[in-house]
Amino acid sequence: MTSVRIGTDELESIAMGAAVLGAGGGGDPYVGKLWAQQRVLVSGPVEMISVDDLSDDSIVIAASMMGAPSVIVEKIPNGGELVAAFRAVEEAYGARADAVMCIEAGGINSTIPFAVAADLGIPIVDCDGMGRAFPEMQMVSFAVHGLPATPMAVADEYGNLSLLRCVSAEWAERLGRALVVAEGGAAVTAKYPMRGRDVKRTAIRGTLSLALEIGTELRRAGRRSAAVIAWLTKRLGGAVLFRGKVVDLESQILGGFVRGAVTIEGLEKLLASSCRVTFQNENLVATVDDVTLASVPDLITILEDESGHPVTTERLRFGMRVVVLAFPCAPLWREKLGLAKAGPRCFGLELDYVPFEERLAAR
Amino acid sequence: MTSVRIGTDELESIAMGAAVLGAGGGGDPYVGKLWAQQRVLVSGPVEMISVDDLSDDSIVIAASMMGAPSVIVEKIPNGGELVAAFRAVEEAYGARADAVMCIEAGGINSTIPFAVAADLGIPIVDCDGMGRAFPEMQMVSFAVHGLPATPMAVADEYGNLSLLRCVSAEWAERLGRALVVAEGGAAVTAKYPMRGRDVKRTAIRGTLSLALEIGTELRRAGRRSAAVIAWLTKRLGGAVLFRGKVVDLESQILGGFVRGAVTIEGLEKLLASSCRVTFQNENLVATVDDVTLASVPDLITILEDESGHPVTTERLRFGMRVVVLAFPCAPLWREKLGLAKAGPRCFGLELDYVPFEERLAAR
Repeated sequence: MTSVRIGTDELESIAMGAAVLGAGGGGDPYVGKLWAQQRVLVSGPVEMISVDDLSDDSIVIAASMMGAPSVIVEKIPNGGELVAAFRAVEEAYGARADAVMCIEAGGINSTIPFAVAADLGIPIVDCDGMGRAFPEMQMVSFAVHGLPATPMAVADEYGNLSLLRCVSAEWAERLGRALVVAEGGAAVTAKYPMRGRDVKRTAIRGTLSLALEIGTELRRAGRRSAAVIAWLTKRLGGAVLFRGKVVDLESQILGGFVRGAVTIEGLEKLLASSCRVTFQNENLVATVDDVTLASVPDLITILEDESGHPVTTERLRFGMRVVVLAFPCAPLWREKLGLAKAGPRCFGLELDYVPFEERLAAR
Repeated sequence: MTSVRIGTDELESIAMGAAVLGAGGGGDPYVGKLWAQQRVLVSGPVEMISVDDLSDDSIVIAASMMGAPSVIVEKIPNGGELVAAFRAVEEAYGARADAVMCIEAGGINSTIPFAVAADLGIPIVDCDGMGRAFPEMQMVSFAVHGLPATPMAVADEYGNLSLLRCVSAEWAERLGRALVVAEGGAAVTAKYPMRGRDVKRTAIRGTLSLALEIGTELRRAGRRSAAVIAWLTKRLGGAVLFRGKVVDLESQILGGFVRGAVTIEGLEKLLASSCRVTFQNENLVATVDDVTLASVPDLITILEDESGHPVTTERLRFGMRVVVLAFPCAPLWREKLGLAKAGPRCFGLELDYVPFEERLAAR
């Protein structure tokens, strides 16, 4: 049994590392990190256990925020919603949770599960359902393997609590999203209650320890962008797609998502070229001079060029100097079943998925 | 103990009578009537009991459809949703229902509660929460008296079941409406679970027997419009506001409601004048030559001039000859507390409420 104790310092690293894996989404790390750190200060460090340490019959429930990340950074939780949502799912599922897990890697959704783990005094499992962040809740390994998303609870800071039982993860996404929009654009959820044996069978393993490792390295590198980029591309098998300055930014909150695109112009005057990255909470497609270089489900992550720190979509600003990177997604997403849940066409894109490594090699 | 047995013939009358009380809303009687009649044919007549026959500790739950009536007539239920919604509220409330009640008078919402009463083998209470139909679920006598709307269940024909616990009836309306819109514009609900003593204290009594009486009379009169109108205005203390032909009709489904207005032109060429009735599911305001003659919470009901039968907003058609009538609302709605929940300003209207009798007398 290998477990790691996660305190405030580890949360600092996880928040930063998860924002790299979040591919522009999963929420700005700041709010989630503060929330989790405050709960850990009150209740003590959280034990992070590996998937193999779960007993087959244990009960695991995923915790997450749902909504537009740009809303989440301004609409602050009251702190009690996550426990309320957990209790509602536990009651509906008929058993208390033995552990908490993350639905996705991302600044907020990799940290607030630590808050509820601290509040409930139970461990968190070193895994998630995406190995990155995706905007919709059926885009998750659990759903690819046919596990139900519900009973799912949605709780807001006003004290409203909704419990959904849906016929599919897609319906849970649709109804959960409708509630979250009506609640002002963001709320917290508890969902995908399952047994330990199903976590072992379906989860994407090691996501949190990977986030911790990435964040630790980024903090150690201390804003030396070149070192960060070299380390990241090697560690994750990634590549630099583009480097330049943000010259155009369209973004709107639509149906509970941040949707838009950023245009980045190269800095070499004579070789002027431009890169466009579209997003739905997360970065979806990166094109350079209208040629697609990477697309979902591969990770497209934008770093601030000066610091090497990840920039979430809602933090992009005109004039910001950035580096666009691509990293391979978890193997599941490159399989037929995975692409059926989270391939480019699931985002309404008229695009066939080609791994970014192949696209770059063909160029 | 006085109870009435409601079979298929009585349902025919209730559906028609409730459509008069529905003030243009509450849904077209056809679908709800068929549903209730079919369940009554299978399970036998439903016992309708008076409010006074309830024991103080009995449990009563309201059943209704929620959504745009024009959707309801095309999006047919699977038949099992109401029982599923009831069971969910019973479980959350911690007790089985002893009786069903209506939230409002209206073609659909006065009949489908009979379907669930038949399915569950329990009586229906001769009352409702409005004495008419209103578009939003906090516009109900139970909420005026501070009773909670939740736990409330929303069930759709796909099999999705949502249970809401909200901090106010307004929040229940907001979240319930969001779900219903996401479910295609209409779904069924079970809500306002309460004790018999609270029904006695807060319900609007005798609504169903009044609907039965009205419907029986309309059917007896056999499309003799003049006789129907004379009887109705006498029985309900109403008045004819206008008579003419539909010449303009704006209607859209927006946010889970049918919103719009109908313009009716007088038939006397030399005394040409026109009447406009605006609606949000139900008729809100009737003006004649730009002078307001009646407004919510008073009932504005449109009858087909040929038959004397009520016309719901979604059944209005160009060229239809109609009579616009006003009837006084239940006394509660003319009080300060009632007007705070369902006065003109609750519908976003810049209008102070004046009883239609006073408006007509001043004219």
